[in-house]
Amino acid sequence: MAPVALTTPSASSVSDSIKSTFSSIIPGVASSSIEDTFHPLDPLTSSELNVAVRTIRAHALTTAPTGRLWFKFVTLLEPPKALLVPYLTSPASFPCPPRAAQALLAVKVQDGDKVVVQYYEYEVVLVDDQGLGEVTKCEKMRGDGHAMFDADEMLAGEKAVLEIQEVKDLIQTLQLPKGSEVVADPWCYLFKIDYVPIAGGRSTNTINDLPGGVGSYPWDKLERNEYDHALQVEAGGKIRTGLKPLEVIQREGPSFKVNGWEVEWQKWKFRVGFNFREGVTLHNITYDSRSLFHRLSISDMTVPYADPRGPMHRKQAFDLGDIGAGVCANQLDLGCDCLGHIHYFGAPIVDSKGEVKELKNVVCLHEQDEGLGWKHTNFRTGVGSVVRNRVLVVQMIITVDNYEYIFAYKFDQAANIHLETRATGILSTQNILPGERSPYGNIVSPGVLAANHQHLFSLRIDPAIDGQANSVVMEDSVPMPFDPQNPPKDNVYGVGYEVTKTVIKDAGWADAKPEANRVFKMINPNKLNPISGNPVGYKLVPAPSQMMLAHPASVAALRAEFGGHHIWVTSYRDGELFSGGTYTGQSRGNAGGIKSWVARQDNVENDDLVLWHTFGLTHNPRVEDFPVMPVEIHTISLKPADFFSRNPAIDVPASTQKENKSVLFTGAQEQGCCKV
Amino acid sequence: MAPVALTTPSASSVSDSIKSTFSSIIPGVASSSIEDTFHPLDPLTSSELNVAVRTIRAHALTTAPTGRLWFKFVTLLEPPKALLVPYLTSPASFPCPPRAAQALLAVKVQDGDKVVVQYYEYEVVLVDDQGLGEVTKCEKMRGDGHAMFDADEMLAGEKAVLEIQEVKDLIQTLQLPKGSEVVADPWCYLFKIDYVPIAGGRSTNTINDLPGGVGSYPWDKLERNEYDHALQVEAGGKIRTGLKPLEVIQREGPSFKVNGWEVEWQKWKFRVGFNFREGVTLHNITYDSRSLFHRLSISDMTVPYADPRGPMHRKQAFDLGDIGAGVCANQLDLGCDCLGHIHYFGAPIVDSKGEVKELKNVVCLHEQDEGLGWKHTNFRTGVGSVVRNRVLVVQMIITVDNYEYIFAYKFDQAANIHLETRATGILSTQNILPGERSPYGNIVSPGVLAANHQHLFSLRIDPAIDGQANSVVMEDSVPMPFDPQNPPKDNVYGVGYEVTKTVIKDAGWADAKPEANRVFKMINPNKLNPISGNPVGYKLVPAPSQMMLAHPASVAALRAEFGGHHIWVTSYRDGELFSGGTYTGQSRGNAGGIKSWVARQDNVENDDLVLWHTFGLTHNPRVEDFPVMPVEIHTISLKPADFFSRNPAIDVPASTQKENKSVLFTGAQEQGCCKV
Repeated sequence: MAPVALTTPSASSVSDSIKSTFSSIIPGVASSSIEDTFHPLDPLTSSELNVAVRTIRAHALTTAPTGRLWFKFVTLLEPPKALLVPYLTSPASFPCPPRAAQALLAVKVQDGDKVVVQYYEYEVVLVDDQGLGEVTKCEKMRGDGHAMFDADEMLAGEKAVLEIQEVKDLIQTLQLPKGSEVVADPWCYLFKIDYVPIAGGRSTNTINDLPGGVGSYPWDKLERNEYDHALQVEAGGKIRTGLKPLEVIQREGPSFKVNGWEVEWQKWKFRVGFNFREGVTLHNITYDSRSLFHRLSISDMTVPYADPRGPMHRKQAFDLGDIGAGVCANQLDLGCDCLGHIHYFGAPIVDSKGEVKELKNVVCLHEQDEGLGWKHTNFRTGVGSVVRNRVLVVQMIITVDNYEYIFAYKFDQAANIHLETRATGILSTQNILPGERSPYGNIVSPGVLAANHQHLFSLRIDPAIDGQANSVVMEDSVPMPFDPQNPPKDNVYGVGYEVTKTVIKDAGWADAKPEANRVFKMINPNKLNPISGNPVGYKLVPAPSQMMLAHPASVAALRAEFGGHHIWVTSYRDGELFSGGTYTGQSRGNAGGIKSWVARQDNVENDDLVLWHTFGLTHNPRVEDFPVMPVEIHTISLKPADFFSRNPAIDVPASTQKENKSVLFTGAQEQGCCKV
Repeated sequence: MAPVALTTPSASSVSDSIKSTFSSIIPGVASSSIEDTFHPLDPLTSSELNVAVRTIRAHALTTAPTGRLWFKFVTLLEPPKALLVPYLTSPASFPCPPRAAQALLAVKVQDGDKVVVQYYEYEVVLVDDQGLGEVTKCEKMRGDGHAMFDADEMLAGEKAVLEIQEVKDLIQTLQLPKGSEVVADPWCYLFKIDYVPIAGGRSTNTINDLPGGVGSYPWDKLERNEYDHALQVEAGGKIRTGLKPLEVIQREGPSFKVNGWEVEWQKWKFRVGFNFREGVTLHNITYDSRSLFHRLSISDMTVPYADPRGPMHRKQAFDLGDIGAGVCANQLDLGCDCLGHIHYFGAPIVDSKGEVKELKNVVCLHEQDEGLGWKHTNFRTGVGSVVRNRVLVVQMIITVDNYEYIFAYKFDQAANIHLETRATGILSTQNILPGERSPYGNIVSPGVLAANHQHLFSLRIDPAIDGQANSVVMEDSVPMPFDPQNPPKDNVYGVGYEVTKTVIKDAGWADAKPEANRVFKMINPNKLNPISGNPVGYKLVPAPSQMMLAHPASVAALRAEFGGHHIWVTSYRDGELFSGGTYTGQSRGNAGGIKSWVARQDNVENDDLVLWHTFGLTHNPRVEDFPVMPVEIHTISLKPADFFSRNPAIDVPASTQKENKSVLFTGAQEQGCCKV
C-alpha cells in the first residue's frame, strides 16, 4: 500500500475527492471483496469501522505529529452517483462500488509554545473487513473550519468548568440551598478555541454576567419542576388514572419484509441508511418498481434564540452539523416508542478514542393505521366502498441535550411519503428575577425564563422521478383577469382561474406562497403521463413557515445558509449533503453549504438536481411547554402528481369488520336527565 | 293555545326572534315538562319532532293556503345564551330552558294563473313530547331567500328531467352505446325557479351546449373507471395482497364515559350535538372543569369551480347551506370507519313529507393512539421518560353526491383540540374530446376532464375561555431593528425578535400571515396566568390557505361571504350560526351572513365574541385523484396558550411495554449480499 501524503487543503471539490477515492473501479470491476457481502449503501459494520480506525491510526503515526488521536467521526463514504446508480438500477450488469470510509481526525500539535488542534479529513477504501484499508485522502481541514462537538469533549468541558477555581468561588457567592448540585450546560459557542465554559453567569475568559440576576437570585422561590414519573410522585404529584390499555395486534405479523437494510412494503422498496450526522437516511425509493427518490434526508437544522442580550445572543444550535443526529439517536424501547410489530435497525458508531460502540434500536420500522384512505358511497345504490390508510413508519428519535426531535418518514398506500417531525423535550431556560418579565421569552415557572426561538429544518430531496434527469416546476393558481364593468369573453362571470407553470432553469431559491397555492413539482420532462399528457412528477407543497428572523447580516443568519428561503434547487454533486456547510460549528457562513452551490447557477433543467426545503416553527414558549413539552407536530408531504395512471390506492382491499374486529361500545348511560 | 298569525318578514333579528320564543321563562322557571328528560342541547327526539310536525301542520292548515306541506327542515332551536349559560354553569340554580323546534315549511300557493312556492319560518316551543307544541313564530321567508335543496326535490328533479321530451330527443341524438343508462346530475344552480334541469348539455329553458363536445363524443373511447371492489374485479382489476390484519384491542374497554349526548374522557367533558345542517356540533367544552369553548361547528363551506365557460361557471356547492351535512351524514359501519371500541350517536331527521327517519351511527366516538405525547431522556442519568399521545375522536362522514368529507374533532391529553378534515370521494367531472386539453382542469381518464376547484370551510369557534367575556389578540413575531453599520444597543448582534400583540377591538376580519408566524389568541383578559402573568388563553394558528379565487365582484365570491379572509371576529348574537347566510341556496350575497355581522362593528373586546376561521384547499386534480380520491388531510388546532400552569399532559402515565405489549419483529432476512 503506497502511503498517501498528508496534504494541505486543496482546491479540489468534495465531489472530485470522492470520485478520486472510488476511481479504482471506474470503469473496471470492483477492487475489493467485501462489496460482495454488504450493499454499497449499508452503514459501515463494526469490523469495517475497526479497519478504518486501524488504517487511519497507522497512517497518522507515520505522517502526523505524535499525541493522542481524537476521532471526530468515522462513517461510510457513499459511492459517487456515477457508480451507484447503474449498480442500483442493474446490479447484475454493473460493478458494485467498493466500501469506503470517511473520517475526521483531530491531533494536538505543538505550535511554538502552545498546543493547537489540527484536523485531518480522511478517506479510506476498505479492501476487506479485516487488516488495513487504503488511505486515498488525508487533507488538513481548511483554516476557518471547526469540527463538531463530541460527547467526550462535552463531558470533559463540563467537568473542567466546574474545576476552575474562579468558577468554584463564584458558586460559593451564590449561596445555593444545601444539597444543591451545580451542573454545567455546555454549548459550542462561537469562539475559536476548544470550548468556552460559561458557568453561573461567567465565562472563564471574560466573566460575563448572565442576564437574569443570577447573583441575587432568591433560590427559595424556585419550584420543583419534575417530569419523570417517579420524581413527580416523590414531589407530591399525582399521575392521572382512567386511561385504559390500547394494544395494536397484528395476528399474522407485519406486512413488511426486511432484508438487511432493505425494506419492502405494499409496492414500496427502499434502503434505510444511518450515519452519525444525519441519523436515518433513505435511499433508492421505488414504488411498484418505478424510481421516485434517490435519497431523502434531514440535511441540517438550526435553532437560533431571540434574546439579544450577551452572551445569550450566541445561543444557536446546529443539532446535526455541530453534534450529529446519529450520535444523539435514542436506543428505542419496545412498547414505549411504537405499538404493534416493530423491527429495529442498529448501527455501530466510533467514539473519540476510536472505539466502536454498537447503537441498538436507533431506527424503528412499524405499521400504523391512520384512519380512512378513501371512501365513497353511491347515493343512488346506497353501496359504500371504503379502505383504510395503512402507513409504514421509519422513525428516529434524537435527544440533543435538553430537546428531543422525533423524525418519522411515513409511506402510505397512495404512494405518498410524509415526513413528520415532532419537537418535544425540555425548553432551554435561563434565570429571571421573580416579578420581572421579558420581551424575549415567557416565564414558564417562577424565576425561569424560556426564550423565544426558532427551529428551522432543511430537508434534502434528491429526486429520481423515473430516472435522474428531472426538472422543478413552480405552479401558482392565479385568477383570470376580470372587470365587472366590462367582462372579458373568456371569463364572463369572474370565476375562472388558471395554473401558471414556471420551470426552474438555473440553480437558485424560491419561497412558499400559500396565497397563490404555490406547489413545486419534481418532474421528468422526458416522460409524459399517458392519461393527462403532463410530465410525470411528484409535488411538494412547501410549508410556509416563518424563515430566519435574525437580520441577514447577522452571524446567526449567515451561518444558517439554508435559513432564508423555503426552496433551494441545486445541481447534483457527490458529497454535497449538508446545506449549512460541512462544518457548521462556529462557522460565520460561507462554510461550503447551499449558498455556494446555488452561486454556481448550474443548469437544473432536465438534469440531475437536488431540491431542498427549509421549514420549521417559530416557538414562543407557552407555560404549557414546561417542564416537558407536548409534541409540536409538523408534516411535509411528497405526493404523486400525474405520476401514475390512477389512484395508486384503488386496489387496497376493502375495510371490513371481519378483518378489523372493532367492538361496539354498549356502556353508554341512559339519556341524561336534565336535572341530574 | 293562542294561534300565532302568519306574519310577513319582520325587521326583527334572528336573535330577537329566539329571545321571544324563549321569553316565557325569562326570568321565571321552565314552563314545559320535557326539559326534565332531555338536556336543552340534545338533538330533538323522534317524539319531539313528531310534536313539532303536528303542531306546524295544525297551524298551517288554519292559516296558510291549502296544498301539500313540504317540510324543508325541522330541528332543535338552541336556547338563547342568556338562558343556556347560567343553566350549563349551575344547573341546580337556574331554570332549564325549554325545548323548542325551528322549521322551514314550503307551501305551493296560487298566484294569479301560476303556482308559486312560499316559505314559512316556524318556531315551536315543545310543551311535552306528545300532543301539540306552541307556535311562537310563523314568518314568511324574506323575498330574496331560497330554501335548501332536499333529497325528495333532487330525486324528483332527476326524474323530471329525464321525462322531458326534448331531453329524450337529445339523448337519442347522442348515439350512446347499447346498455347505457343516462343519469341526471342535479345541481341547485343559481336560478329563481324550483330547479333547473340541465341534461346532456341542454337546460330546459335555454338548451345550452355544454363545453366538451358532448354531441360528437366518441363514446367507445371511454374507459371503465371502477372504484367499488367487486366492480374492479369484474372489470379485470386486481385487489392488492400482502396487507396483514391490524387490530386495535382495548382489553379493559375504552377510557371514555357516555351519558346521553355528554362525553367524559381524560379530564375533558363536552356535549355532542347533531342537526340536519351542520351535522355534528360540540358544546360546553371543559377541561379539568374549566370552561374552554361554548360551541364548535363547521358553519359553512363552499366549493367553487374554475371553469369559466357557461354553464360550468355556475358550479359552486354550499354543501352545508344548500343541502346539509346532517342530511348527508353516513350511517357508519362497525369495523370499516374506525378501529377499537366505538360508540355511535344516532339522531332522527324529518323528511319533506314531515316523516321522522332515524339516522343510525351518524357520529362515532373512539380513542386512537397517535404516537408519542412527550419524551425526554436525561443524558446525564440515561433515564428516559415517555408518554403516548392518546386522542379521543368525534367523527362524522358526509357524502354530498360525488364527494365525501370526513370531519373529526380530536381531543388530546395535552388539552389540544384538533379539527381534522379529509376530502375524498369522486371528482365532479365533465366531458372533453379525446386529444384536447384544458386550462381549467386535468384529464383524469380518456375523455374525462376534472375541473380545478377550491374547497373553503368556515369553522365557527364560540370561545368561553374561563367564561364568556373574552378578547382576540393577534400576535406577530417581528425582528427587532438592526443596522450592521450602527448596531443598536438592545440588539447588538442582530438576533433579537419580539412578539407584537394587537387586541381586536371591533368586529372585523384579519388574514393569516405565516411569514410573521401570526397567531390568534382567544384570551380572558380578566384572568391572568399565575406563572407567566399573561391572560389565560387558547391559540389558533390559522391555516394560510388560498382564499376565494373568484373575483370579489363575482356572484361566486359575493355569496361565499366568508371566503375572502381567514379570520373573522363578531360579537355573539343568538342564532348567528351560518357564515354564508341562512339561505345560501341561489343567494347573491347579503344573505344575512358574516359580512352583515362584522358590518355592525360591535365591540368584541372583553365581551362575548365568536371567532370564525376560513381555510381549505385549492384542488387542481391529479390523475391520482381518480376514479376515487385518496384522502387529502388538513388539520386546524386549538391549543392552550398560558391557560394552564404547566404541561397538561405531564401526569399522563408512562408508556410501558407491560401496557402496550408490542412485539419484536424477528423475521428480518440476513444482511443482504450485494450481488443477491
